[in-house]
Amino acid sequence: MVVVMRSGATDTDVDKVVKAISEVGGDAFVSRGKHQTIVGLVGDLTQFAEMPLHAFPGVEDVIRVSKPYKLVSNDAHPRPSTVWVGNSPIGRETVTLIAGPCAVETEQQTIDACVMAKDAGATILRGGAYKPRTSPYAFQGLGEQGLDILHGVSRDLGLPFVTEVVTPADVETVAAKADMLQVGARNMQNFQLLKEVGMAGKPVLLKRGLTATIDEWIMAAEYIAHTGNLQVVLCERGIRTYEPMTRNTLDVSAVPVAQSLTHLPVIIDPSHSGGKRELVMPLIRAGIAVGADGIIVDVHPRPEVALCDGPQALIKDDMLSLRDTVVRYADAAGRSVAAPSIDHTVGAWGRSATS
Amino acid sequence: MVVVMRSGATDTDVDKVVKAISEVGGDAFVSRGKHQTIVGLVGDLTQFAEMPLHAFPGVEDVIRVSKPYKLVSNDAHPRPSTVWVGNSPIGRETVTLIAGPCAVETEQQTIDACVMAKDAGATILRGGAYKPRTSPYAFQGLGEQGLDILHGVSRDLGLPFVTEVVTPADVETVAAKADMLQVGARNMQNFQLLKEVGMAGKPVLLKRGLTATIDEWIMAAEYIAHTGNLQVVLCERGIRTYEPMTRNTLDVSAVPVAQSLTHLPVIIDPSHSGGKRELVMPLIRAGIAVGADGIIVDVHPRPEVALCDGPQALIKDDMLSLRDTVVRYADAAGRSVAAPSIDHTVGAWGRSATS
Amino acid sequence: MVVVMRSGATDTDVDKVVKAISEVGGDAFVSRGKHQTIVGLVGDLTQFAEMPLHAFPGVEDVIRVSKPYKLVSNDAHPRPSTVWVGNSPIGRETVTLIAGPCAVETEQQTIDACVMAKDAGATILRGGAYKPRTSPYAFQGLGEQGLDILHGVSRDLGLPFVTEVVTPADVETVAAKADMLQVGARNMQNFQLLKEVGMAGKPVLLKRGLTATIDEWIMAAEYIAHTGNLQVVLCERGIRTYEPMTRNTLDVSAVPVAQSLTHLPVIIDPSHSGGKRELVMPLIRAGIAVGADGIIVDVHPRPEVALCDGPQALIKDDMLSLRDTVVRYADAAGRSVAAPSIDHTVGAWGRSATS
Amino acid sequence: MVVVMRSGATDTDVDKVVKAISEVGGDAFVSRGKHQTIVGLVGDLTQFAEMPLHAFPGVEDVIRVSKPYKLVSNDAHPRPSTVWVGNSPIGRETVTLIAGPCAVETEQQTIDACVMAKDAGATILRGGAYKPRTSPYAFQGLGEQGLDILHGVSRDLGLPFVTEVVTPADVETVAAKADMLQVGARNMQNFQLLKEVGMAGKPVLLKRGLTATIDEWIMAAEYIAHTGNLQVVLCERGIRTYEPMTRNTLDVSAVPVAQSLTHLPVIIDPSHSGGKRELVMPLIRAGIAVGADGIIVDVHPRPEVALCDGPQALIKDDMLSLRDTVVRYADAAGRSVAAPSIDHTVGAWGRSATS
Repeated sequence: MVVVMRSGATDTDVDKVVKAISEVGGDAFVSRGKHQTIVGLVGDLTQFAEMPLHAFPGVEDVIRVSKPYKLVSNDAHPRPSTVWVGNSPIGRETVTLIAGPCAVETEQQTIDACVMAKDAGATILRGGAYKPRTSPYAFQGLGEQGLDILHGVSRDLGLPFVTEVVTPADVETVAAKADMLQVGARNMQNFQLLKEVGMAGKPVLLKRGLTATIDEWIMAAEYIAHTGNLQVVLCERGIRTYEPMTRNTLDVSAVPVAQSLTHLPVIIDPSHSGGKRELVMPLIRAGIAVGADGIIVDVHPRPEVALCDGPQALIKDDMLSLRDTVVRYADAAGRSVAAPSIDHTVGAWGRSATS
Repeated sequence: MVVVMRSGATDTDVDKVVKAISEVGGDAFVSRGKHQTIVGLVGDLTQFAEMPLHAFPGVEDVIRVSKPYKLVSNDAHPRPSTVWVGNSPIGRETVTLIAGPCAVETEQQTIDACVMAKDAGATILRGGAYKPRTSPYAFQGLGEQGLDILHGVSRDLGLPFVTEVVTPADVETVAAKADMLQVGARNMQNFQLLKEVGMAGKPVLLKRGLTATIDEWIMAAEYIAHTGNLQVVLCERGIRTYEPMTRNTLDVSAVPVAQSLTHLPVIIDPSHSGGKRELVMPLIRAGIAVGADGIIVDVHPRPEVALCDGPQALIKDDMLSLRDTVVRYADAAGRSVAAPSIDHTVGAWGRSATS
Repeated sequence: MVVVMRSGATDTDVDKVVKAISEVGGDAFVSRGKHQTIVGLVGDLTQFAEMPLHAFPGVEDVIRVSKPYKLVSNDAHPRPSTVWVGNSPIGRETVTLIAGPCAVETEQQTIDACVMAKDAGATILRGGAYKPRTSPYAFQGLGEQGLDILHGVSRDLGLPFVTEVVTPADVETVAAKADMLQVGARNMQNFQLLKEVGMAGKPVLLKRGLTATIDEWIMAAEYIAHTGNLQVVLCERGIRTYEPMTRNTLDVSAVPVAQSLTHLPVIIDPSHSGGKRELVMPLIRAGIAVGADGIIVDVHPRPEVALCDGPQALIKDDMLSLRDTVVRYADAAGRSVAAPSIDHTVGAWGRSATS
Repeated sequence: MVVVMRSGATDTDVDKVVKAISEVGGDAFVSRGKHQTIVGLVGDLTQFAEMPLHAFPGVEDVIRVSKPYKLVSNDAHPRPSTVWVGNSPIGRETVTLIAGPCAVETEQQTIDACVMAKDAGATILRGGAYKPRTSPYAFQGLGEQGLDILHGVSRDLGLPFVTEVVTPADVETVAAKADMLQVGARNMQNFQLLKEVGMAGKPVLLKRGLTATIDEWIMAAEYIAHTGNLQVVLCERGIRTYEPMTRNTLDVSAVPVAQSLTHLPVIIDPSHSGGKRELVMPLIRAGIAVGADGIIVDVHPRPEVALCDGPQALIKDDMLSLRDTVVRYADAAGRSVAAPSIDHTVGAWGRSATS
């Protein structure tokens, strides 16, 4: 950290900072100039981060220059991790396709959507049973019944599934059936949920908040890691900007940035960011090309009767193109499309290797 | 709602929209031009809002033109509400000062801060026992012990208190002691928390999310109202923008806008938006002047040892100026400073009148 | 400035930075820690600011910690300046009301609007002759004819006027008649315009760009000051955020922040930020309360036939309330409403004192 | 357009809107519901767009539902245009690489950078002679001397070049030598510059403003088109968001959106958006994959001595990878890399075909 002193700061003010730092075992180096004095703090950040240096007399600004996270940082863990979801990997060497319905509405719709997903090459299914909705009057999901439908379809098709959990009380129920737990954008800083999801021991898909900085997103992953669960996959899903033509702005730069800071896989969600079906395929291409480790995408057999986010779902006619696009761009990126592993049999689902 | 058809949309496409609307009991009026056709939907929005009209053939855009909320809307409830917190009102005719420590750290610090608050004219105390923190390594609050300290100080000083609840499981514990429950900015769309807080029957202070639109903020209030609890106070606390010099940008316009759409009181938080002590007083003045029904502000007896948000807390030297500022600007605004009511004795705390 | 080295940076990397700094006469202090090394640069910033330190081997980040501007900084000029526009002051001790039509449409409309403005207490008139419009099909202003109308009305009413200049070629023409030149939000970084406006020798009203940081805004003022013209008034007019309910978000915090960094007066524009007539008065109150040195506001005798920005103009019925509001809040702020000075006769208009 | 009436609007209010519209030759269709009335306006938008309907009594909101631009719209011109810069095309069937130094510093540096660019497969050179700089103390470019250097290098290498023009007075000088004129992000709404650049008759590269909506960006292109010059290429270069880790956020979604609304080519600038060398290659890949018609990129032979934007320039070691990346992703996109045309000899440079 760097402490910038005000131009009128006295020697006593500077000494007070230096003393406070050395009391917690850090080193403070003073750069004293004619107009300005800077104090560089070196040592274990967690000791200083909580210190209210801003409120010290003569202090103008305190600037953090090192990473505030440890467990998910690639400093401690330089090799990228592969997170296994059931028999399917998500990692730096493959491109993983996750697909399924936005919301589970009926068993038939779920079967149809998941068969579409499998045909397109998905190795992990997705589907929402518990839906966080902006309006209390909107369809809130089928809850446990939806979870059962998803579980049945998943086992019938032989593919693991990820589903969102929206409140700590549901974690146990969801974790008993799902192969991966999703924390949604609106819950990215629901810290109690992060802790309980972490403790459930299943892999976690952590969506970036609509307005979270990359640092805050990684700190949310650190919350999960702090419970001892390092099986976290980051998901960029678009950030809120002033542009009204797209629902959100997919921040593709966040993919290489997060990959350069952590050892976690990073995927993108092109459905919820663009908000329009015609943007989904271009954003999938951009996501794979920028280096994403996977894609999570909504598909729907009949979007014109969808109860949730119909406009952005891919339809049957798109499936061939989806499969082809993933193959083609994974190839351009020098990666293979992720495939289920025979070493990860159904019985072993839930095992995870962070290599 | 308005459905805008694509320029190439056929009559069949238009008819399909009209038919779907009339099937749910709405009226669809077609404005057919040479280049463009628009369909105006009139009737009960809740019937159409969930309809995936975007996914209908020939539809280019669907635009909502009426309010998606009912219970908190001033359409249904034209007179502004007054929410009573213990013996203290928050409403359109007064300016209410809420003050106290950001976090409860020790009993002595809490007493000192709350005495400062009372001296400055506060009629409601604030303090954090459960703290949502970006880092898992940061001080997370004293929890139930902090709640007990707050409760004791509140009763000793004869002033009600508001405190944040961060997860549904804590609602019952907190509601048993606190006079008002706060939902923080990061939890504004934690829908399960909104529901449980609503059902606890206590007044609720609902902070605007860092990146929530005014519509989303009001919809979050509607979630609480939907449980039958209309004692909701909205709190603008700064939104996230690109400007790095302030922690957040206090959106003063949101105060008159929210007041023109709902019957709920709207207050501002100048401490968390500015993030710097020297901005607190100017923002208090701006907040009262723009028409806020109250102010919630951090005070700390010794900010240089604060465990949380020390840099932005007002200190003892500021209290006289705080009292004077509130009086002076309330006066300019033609309001009185809120005072505890003798009609709301301690025994009756928790009663609320929405007139 | 602070140079943060990468964790793997070598001693040679660090030495290279130190050497480069000393070659330009600066001092570099090295804070060497176990995990991280920081180099504090002390000296004249203008020497380092242009140095591509980011591209040096082993450098992770370069952080600026001192102000990049000099002439408008309050470091060099601690006492706040008063800028005189004709016979009317704008400064820290008064509240100045600037009012008039958004655009000059006809002579009669301009007379009517300016009489309304004077009645409300305005001491400086405003009006647009050259309009920067988003659409080439929109009314672009009357140009020189509009300028003549404004000039005539200004002299008839005995009040100076400010008008926008949109391109360098028009500066001379506009400066020959106007008492103050306005640089609009879209031109805040039109650097050639800033230079020419500066050289015209008239006071300048510099609006903040829709998306300019406070630092960039002040740097734009420095461009003007660099021509030797220190008669610059900063104007906060709302920034672009994600919130759709208001045209822009008035950043009231920017007022005290800019006042704490520069010696320039800072005013606010409540008309263009809110974009709705009903928001104008609340934002005027907030602006004066937060400490603005003045207000610039649109008025129109018949907004329903306005050629530009009619919805946000105040109308005749608002004038009494406008006058009263300015007086009341200036009083609460301990300031007087600015009045024309007898010491600044018409003959002396254009003189300016930066005390 | 759609006019939304307030809930209390009277029949007279509605009639007034209908009458005003029919007076200018439009049709107004009224959708009258129990709670709300909507008026759909059909006809030529340019007739209504300027009408101050917002200020009519009883009007709550006015919503534009059709495109405000004509000449650049793909409604009027369904086939995508190819813009020729000298002998090199930019269009929907190819991927064009534009490269060169950010700023022209010396002749040798310009030669070295442009040779690097040509080796990497660039068919158009770029370089800045006139630089818009945030600080008046920063290097402002070599001006006309830089233009001459660029022109010489361009002719020696047999490749056309694009360069920025920052003020109307320079347009003639720059247009006399450059093959394409660039309007920078900060000047996107410098309307006089747009007009003069349009009239110069050379192709124009129009960068999106840091905070411009896609609509505003296209309207700026319409300004140029309005002068009769349809040779406009749009360039997405990153928008300003709250994320501090990247200089700007490259909005890849803007590429397919702008391509779906206009007939103009759309390219991306990965250098100025990311602001870091390590982000340039991932963003190039994302840009081509999302469907951009070209890429404009900074290269520098010795970034550690660059006078401008050194940290983000690609270096010699990157050239092989740059060439390979463009080929590989153009191939995945089913496009060829743009090549100079023998039909467009040097003598014919400046000709352009919009097919």
